Amino acid sequence: MSGSSIGVLFRVTTWGESHGRAIGVVIEGCPPRISLSESDIQEGLDRRRPGQGLSVSPRREEDVVQILSGIFEGKTTGTPISLIIKNRDARSEAYDEVRDVFRPGHGDFTYYHKYGVRDHRGGGRASGRETVARVAAGAIAGRIIGREGIYITAYTKELGGIVAERISYEDIDENYIRCPDSNAALKMEGRLEEAKNSGDSIGGVVEILVRGCPSGLGEPVFDKIDADLAKALVSIGTVKGVEIGAGFQAARMSGSECNDPITPDGFLTNNAGGILAGITNGDEIVIRVACKPISSVEKEQRTVDVYGKPVSISIKGRHDVSVIPRIIPVCEAMVSIVLADHLLRQKVLQVTTK
Amino acid sequence: MSGSSIGVLFRVTTWGESHGRAIGVVIEGCPPRISLSESDIQEGLDRRRPGQGLSVSPRREEDVVQILSGIFEGKTTGTPISLIIKNRDARSEAYDEVRDVFRPGHGDFTYYHKYGVRDHRGGGRASGRETVARVAAGAIAGRIIGREGIYITAYTKELGGIVAERISYEDIDENYIRCPDSNAALKMEGRLEEAKNSGDSIGGVVEILVRGCPSGLGEPVFDKIDADLAKALVSIGTVKGVEIGAGFQAARMSGSECNDPITPDGFLTNNAGGILAGITNGDEIVIRVACKPISSVEKEQRTVDVYGKPVSISIKGRHDVSVIPRIIPVCEAMVSIVLADHLLRQKVLQVTTK
Amino acid sequence: MSGSSIGVLFRVTTWGESHGRAIGVVIEGCPPRISLSESDIQEGLDRRRPGQGLSVSPRREEDVVQILSGIFEGKTTGTPISLIIKNRDARSEAYDEVRDVFRPGHGDFTYYHKYGVRDHRGGGRASGRETVARVAAGAIAGRIIGREGIYITAYTKELGGIVAERISYEDIDENYIRCPDSNAALKMEGRLEEAKNSGDSIGGVVEILVRGCPSGLGEPVFDKIDADLAKALVSIGTVKGVEIGAGFQAARMSGSECNDPITPDGFLTNNAGGILAGITNGDEIVIRVACKPISSVEKEQRTVDVYGKPVSISIKGRHDVSVIPRIIPVCEAMVSIVLADHLLRQKVLQVTTK
Amino acid sequence: MSGSSIGVLFRVTTWGESHGRAIGVVIEGCPPRISLSESDIQEGLDRRRPGQGLSVSPRREEDVVQILSGIFEGKTTGTPISLIIKNRDARSEAYDEVRDVFRPGHGDFTYYHKYGVRDHRGGGRASGRETVARVAAGAIAGRIIGREGIYITAYTKELGGIVAERISYEDIDENYIRCPDSNAALKMEGRLEEAKNSGDSIGGVVEILVRGCPSGLGEPVFDKIDADLAKALVSIGTVKGVEIGAGFQAARMSGSECNDPITPDGFLTNNAGGILAGITNGDEIVIRVACKPISSVEKEQRTVDVYGKPVSISIKGRHDVSVIPRIIPVCEAMVSIVLADHLLRQKVLQVTTK
Repeated sequence: MSGSSIGVLFRVTTWGESHGRAIGVVIEGCPPRISLSESDIQEGLDRRRPGQGLSVSPRREEDVVQILSGIFEGKTTGTPISLIIKNRDARSEAYDEVRDVFRPGHGDFTYYHKYGVRDHRGGGRASGRETVARVAAGAIAGRIIGREGIYITAYTKELGGIVAERISYEDIDENYIRCPDSNAALKMEGRLEEAKNSGDSIGGVVEILVRGCPSGLGEPVFDKIDADLAKALVSIGTVKGVEIGAGFQAARMSGSECNDPITPDGFLTNNAGGILAGITNGDEIVIRVACKPISSVEKEQRTVDVYGKPVSISIKGRHDVSVIPRIIPVCEAMVSIVLADHLLRQKVLQVTTK
Repeated sequence: MSGSSIGVLFRVTTWGESHGRAIGVVIEGCPPRISLSESDIQEGLDRRRPGQGLSVSPRREEDVVQILSGIFEGKTTGTPISLIIKNRDARSEAYDEVRDVFRPGHGDFTYYHKYGVRDHRGGGRASGRETVARVAAGAIAGRIIGREGIYITAYTKELGGIVAERISYEDIDENYIRCPDSNAALKMEGRLEEAKNSGDSIGGVVEILVRGCPSGLGEPVFDKIDADLAKALVSIGTVKGVEIGAGFQAARMSGSECNDPITPDGFLTNNAGGILAGITNGDEIVIRVACKPISSVEKEQRTVDVYGKPVSISIKGRHDVSVIPRIIPVCEAMVSIVLADHLLRQKVLQVTTK
Repeated sequence: MSGSSIGVLFRVTTWGESHGRAIGVVIEGCPPRISLSESDIQEGLDRRRPGQGLSVSPRREEDVVQILSGIFEGKTTGTPISLIIKNRDARSEAYDEVRDVFRPGHGDFTYYHKYGVRDHRGGGRASGRETVARVAAGAIAGRIIGREGIYITAYTKELGGIVAERISYEDIDENYIRCPDSNAALKMEGRLEEAKNSGDSIGGVVEILVRGCPSGLGEPVFDKIDADLAKALVSIGTVKGVEIGAGFQAARMSGSECNDPITPDGFLTNNAGGILAGITNGDEIVIRVACKPISSVEKEQRTVDVYGKPVSISIKGRHDVSVIPRIIPVCEAMVSIVLADHLLRQKVLQVTTK
Repeated sequence: MSGSSIGVLFRVTTWGESHGRAIGVVIEGCPPRISLSESDIQEGLDRRRPGQGLSVSPRREEDVVQILSGIFEGKTTGTPISLIIKNRDARSEAYDEVRDVFRPGHGDFTYYHKYGVRDHRGGGRASGRETVARVAAGAIAGRIIGREGIYITAYTKELGGIVAERISYEDIDENYIRCPDSNAALKMEGRLEEAKNSGDSIGGVVEILVRGCPSGLGEPVFDKIDADLAKALVSIGTVKGVEIGAGFQAARMSGSECNDPITPDGFLTNNAGGILAGITNGDEIVIRVACKPISSVEKEQRTVDVYGKPVSISIKGRHDVSVIPRIIPVCEAMVSIVLADHLLRQKVLQVTTK
């Protein structure tokens, strides 16, 4: 198993390297008779595209998705959906100077040790470019959960140490950082500029909210929905931590503080983040992920080459200063995929217990 | 899929309810010809057992494991290993008074909404008792990784807001909290006592270190080893957050700070927590999990019954004040299981590429 | 993966060796709120039990099933069902004389070469005794498909070269061979006697009919329902061939003969055996399996021991003359398991396309 | 799960409809550093292509494979290999007249009842065209097993009732039917001509031999290698039966006849077909599959339309008279895929037990 598949009933398999011919994804288990067009998927890809604002790389990726199977007369057929996004701007020569050098913080070192193959062209399979396939699959997952009234919103909770103090949904679309606090957004822009000027990069925290999720999603023991969400989100290269509801703060609470009192009108608080014993409780799902700063920085760093010789490296290229905001649609996609899968799993139960 | 299985090549399936006849686990994929006896597994169970110190429930669980299959003449045969632990002290009458009430923070509410079945006897499948099967399976996983020189140490990093300021391996076994800082341990004991006296509970943070792990474990994209570790750990009922290496702190660093410089002698720092692009880099693996406070508290709480009527509840029973330290062997078991699985997956690669 | 699991949504994992402590099975994915008692399962085991008529071994297996989990107050809970059958008559000394000899036709030779372990006690995991776990799981699968009006009947179509010329359902229960043609049954009994007297064994053909199966079960491409049935049936140790509908006879037909004409009242013929393009068409499912003669015979045979030395062997023990009729409930169980799995898979589709 | 994936460690997922944009396949688990070019794969596709001799459709499918990922500098990288074959000659108008009619023997009826979608264009996902993806994947599987000295030969054992009386490897390539008996081949050609002239089709039997297979491949209980081979072969749309070794003939033998005597030099006979208790014994693997006659015939047949009205149909189109010989590379591909998967599974065992 190469580890490129996720999901049980809604199953997503991605393929493709950053500088190969194309990136793609096969989606198995999408129910039939759902309307779906290329433009539905394209919309998600466009949100992930670079070129919006300062934080992002000037490299121009015109990602155009093509549906190759699984759709007939504008509707899903129930058979595998194959999506392809061609790699247009694949100038792998740009990577020639790092051909034999392990870039710090990247997968170069570990892939080489795992496979004995050195694909220096921008990270190969480990490249952030692989996430374009996730976003494409997420658009289809989004259709499945959207039909049930489940909606996902993700935004920048923290960037370069600056924290959004308030969550105003209206603010999110008002700034390219997708921060729900316009004041904080301004400061974050400043931090991005600083980092750019110093040839460095910064990290941040993305918060993801799921509204309208029915209770009952998630399976006992290992396939708890928070466990599957944690896996899906940590599988994004940049993520170094994940927390649900009160998260690490829960570790500092007492039981009487942390337990969410239940009333006939619902839960009074939401420290559980909408999940109890691994199963959704009908409340809002709340998750946060810690994104490390981008590893490719201009600042000189110590490393070694494939022969073990110490070298110094300064990565020039066209790189983002932060994965935020481009990582946000990727987080949304992963959450959509997990929810679609568990929604289908829960459907089996419902129909069989009638 | 009921969600009770984990792993691809080393596959663990647990079964059993807290107050049923027994708890058990089937392990598929254990290599043949490994020496294994019941006492090897019993040792792990004894560490998980309550009755050690103040923090733990006076309930006496004498968990005795029996091997039912997969061993012949003291060695594994390569076929499924079935382990069973009988439930001895299953006085479900103790739960009669909560028969129709959803305990806050527990899975009662969500299981009822998922299955339409109310098994009030101590949480049924959602009970912490299920973890006895994990620990038993973890003992076998531990044998597999131990043969390769991989060792896991877990300890209490934080309890009730008190943080271990230093990591002294010798201290871990000196206090029943398994805290690597004896001074902090004393204060933690005080916090436990306070919580007990006030009829409340407290949470904490467990840190897990893996030493001796070779580079190359983990698969690209979705089955990254940190993703699989996150899933395995968040699948423990009490865990609300997980972080690898610098974790959430990485989100506040710059790239030049966060990247671990590589030298001919290895990495200079370990913000990556031993994992780069989802694959182990040969350095120590570092993970932390946030454990929420135990949900069963004597303090009165607001809730509803199965008919939706508001009620007030005070859970007397024999409950721990904190999942720490009993959760520590469970964390170790889950990490062992994930590592054993990925070790076998990596072995396939090694043998096929020769 | 040790290969001991089958099914996607209704998943069966068996464990146990013929002369270990017990045989068992874990069933995942059984819907909640189905009435189920030990006696429901016991009934199936009793039909598989030896001691009925001449063909079967005088060895007395009193297989008593115990439910260890997944049932609460007489109903399934939706969590894994664990069943255990203790091995009572496990006199492994009886096998001492074949300790170092590979019995022809048995798995001794291949298991030894695969695992490097020699478990001589009656076949270990490869023993026919493992099928007791399949029959137990099949009883639960039978409950799931029975609720939908699906019924399975299997019988002896051929034994020792004698063919049932007619299919009379009433006759099946009239003879211990479970042959639907009483005249043929008499001759078959004669053949069994002959074989027994000559210290030999005989093979036969079992035919399985499924009535009441709705159209739409089965998945395109690889998980066709006939493909999954073929796998499930060939996984029974004794089976060397399987055919659906006209089977090998279809290879001798012309297209215009073989195609089943469709009318408003259904199909005029059933050469397809109820399956078109891997999906049930609502007609009766018809399958036949070829069972080889039992490998343990008293007649002397040439073989080698574990050191490669040629030896001659005459297996005395208490062995059946034919796997028929005891294999019949095993065939029914495997078909039930596959149908239950595909029924659940089809349910997902139905509920999601509404 | 849409059922479009097969294999555990070597995993093949196909996608695409007969008249969509393309057909493709993703292969996960191929070991790294294996030389692989498009022409290696193309060779297999060319053998499957129509246009060779009388038996085959005049429709010209110029199947050209493209590798989209998983290969770098002419070698596999260990990451998913994505292959695509564009559909060039997709004149779906040819199917307009059967738009609303269920063709007898085809999947039209069952797909419609399963999905509620009618894709009339030549069978959609159920079309034989899907097998092009299997052959492409089989070429890669073939590289893996070829490195271990395992070779597969398949040929026409029987066609339209005419049986190959002898197996002469040299003869196979001498006739387009791939019959190992040139005399029989001549008669088979006659039968094909007859069938063509009468607007009908014929079926046949393909025999597959595997030489050089080491002992030890296959897993106990459900994932026996013969069980997995049976599934893989029955998953080919045209196959209605499968037998291993003596197959159905074994059901008519006595144990002393059927058991293959073991000598220091190997087995004296091969009724087992190279497989004992589901594990290869080092002898030649022998399998036969029954292929039904092609369902599309010019002869008039009775059927109904989607509204349930009885109609009569005569399928003109450009259809083969028999799936033989084109199905032969498909059978080889499926056997290759199963063997590659089990070879990798056995490798895990070998490396871990050292």
